[in-house]
Amino acid sequence: MRESYVEELEDIRSCLVEMANTVGSQMSTATTALLDADVALADLVIAGDEQIDATRESIDQRCFTLLARQQPVATDLRSIVTATRIASDLERMGDLAEHIAKVARMRFPDHAVPQEVRPAFLEAGHVAEMLVAKAGTVIATRNVEAARELETDDDAMDRLHRGLFRQLLSDDWPYGVETAIDITLLGRYYERFGDHAVGVARRVVYLVTGERHVPEVSQP
Amino acid sequence: MRESYVEELEDIRSCLVEMANTVGSQMSTATTALLDADVALADLVIAGDEQIDATRESIDQRCFTLLARQQPVATDLRSIVTATRIASDLERMGDLAEHIAKVARMRFPDHAVPQEVRPAFLEAGHVAEMLVAKAGTVIATRNVEAARELETDDDAMDRLHRGLFRQLLSDDWPYGVETAIDITLLGRYYERFGDHAVGVARRVVYLVTGERHVPEVSQP
Repeated sequence: MRESYVEELEDIRSCLVEMANTVGSQMSTATTALLDADVALADLVIAGDEQIDATRESIDQRCFTLLARQQPVATDLRSIVTATRIASDLERMGDLAEHIAKVARMRFPDHAVPQEVRPAFLEAGHVAEMLVAKAGTVIATRNVEAARELETDDDAMDRLHRGLFRQLLSDDWPYGVETAIDITLLGRYYERFGDHAVGVARRVVYLVTGERHVPEVSQP
Repeated sequence: MRESYVEELEDIRSCLVEMANTVGSQMSTATTALLDADVALADLVIAGDEQIDATRESIDQRCFTLLARQQPVATDLRSIVTATRIASDLERMGDLAEHIAKVARMRFPDHAVPQEVRPAFLEAGHVAEMLVAKAGTVIATRNVEAARELETDDDAMDRLHRGLFRQLLSDDWPYGVETAIDITLLGRYYERFGDHAVGVARRVVYLVTGERHVPEVSQP
């Protein structure tokens, strides 16, 4: 029993890593859909989100079955609980990629993102992919150093986000309010994606060290 | 043992109801802070969020202690897991009230919300309070009918949100891009608050009936 229990926990962890990979690929596709106004790619992302939701559901069920069948204490209990929380973060990151794809779809055949802010979103896309890839590595390795680095890595996203607002607020913003609304929401989706990647890293730090940074991802 | 276990579950449920009340009061204060540009009220909300985070932490700890000490199956297991998820929704709703307060604080002594859109936010505040109050009742009573009504009740929030965009996009929006950004984000905070209230209701429906509406709150 004990052995299959450890195996099950390991397998859940592999599923989380795979889920992080899928979310990274969704985010990458969503960014391309956005920047190229590619509605077929946007639809791929929107359709693909169901699989992420299903994976989260399956991970949750497996965790709760473990909780019910075994009586895990201390580290094992914490591992299982952490797994459900990480699955929740990753599922939400998938939603955010889907939201980005939906903005691309809504504005098609126009581009939601005007030329001047393309570089900011291209960069935000890269940072987002880097963050989720690193989150995946942190889940796989439980490397606390790498987890802590993610906090700093996410500063790049926050800087991009602030830069975006500066562009929107510059006197020569020529695109009007509708585009400003799209950019504001898109900026928030990328930023929240980064916040949740940091959330994953913090959960791993807590799991390994018992140190809790903050109770929850809650940047405005 | 069994009796104290049932008592503990009941007590966790009471804590969730109280948490919903606190979140409702935070949202009410945040809306007033926003509409009156009242920085003292905004600071109250910002400071008050810590208590909500702490309550969530405490509910989680109690749930996981129950999971570890008992071997709950079926309904009991589902009750405990549902409690942690509801606590997470309520905590996030508290964050959203805090975000609203922070916008009020950031624009002080100016009003973040211009005269023309005040009625929309006043109404959004009322709807938000109604939704969280009803969510509290649903937690307390496990009334499936009331839980299902919450879905329809939240449509009012979605209508307000769409109306807000229409105002922003009307040809005579005189307030420029900065205010449009604030309004866009504020609108999203209220809308997400409603989504999470619906999330709470869906979790209760699932707990009572086993019917799952959607895996997670994920409206864009």
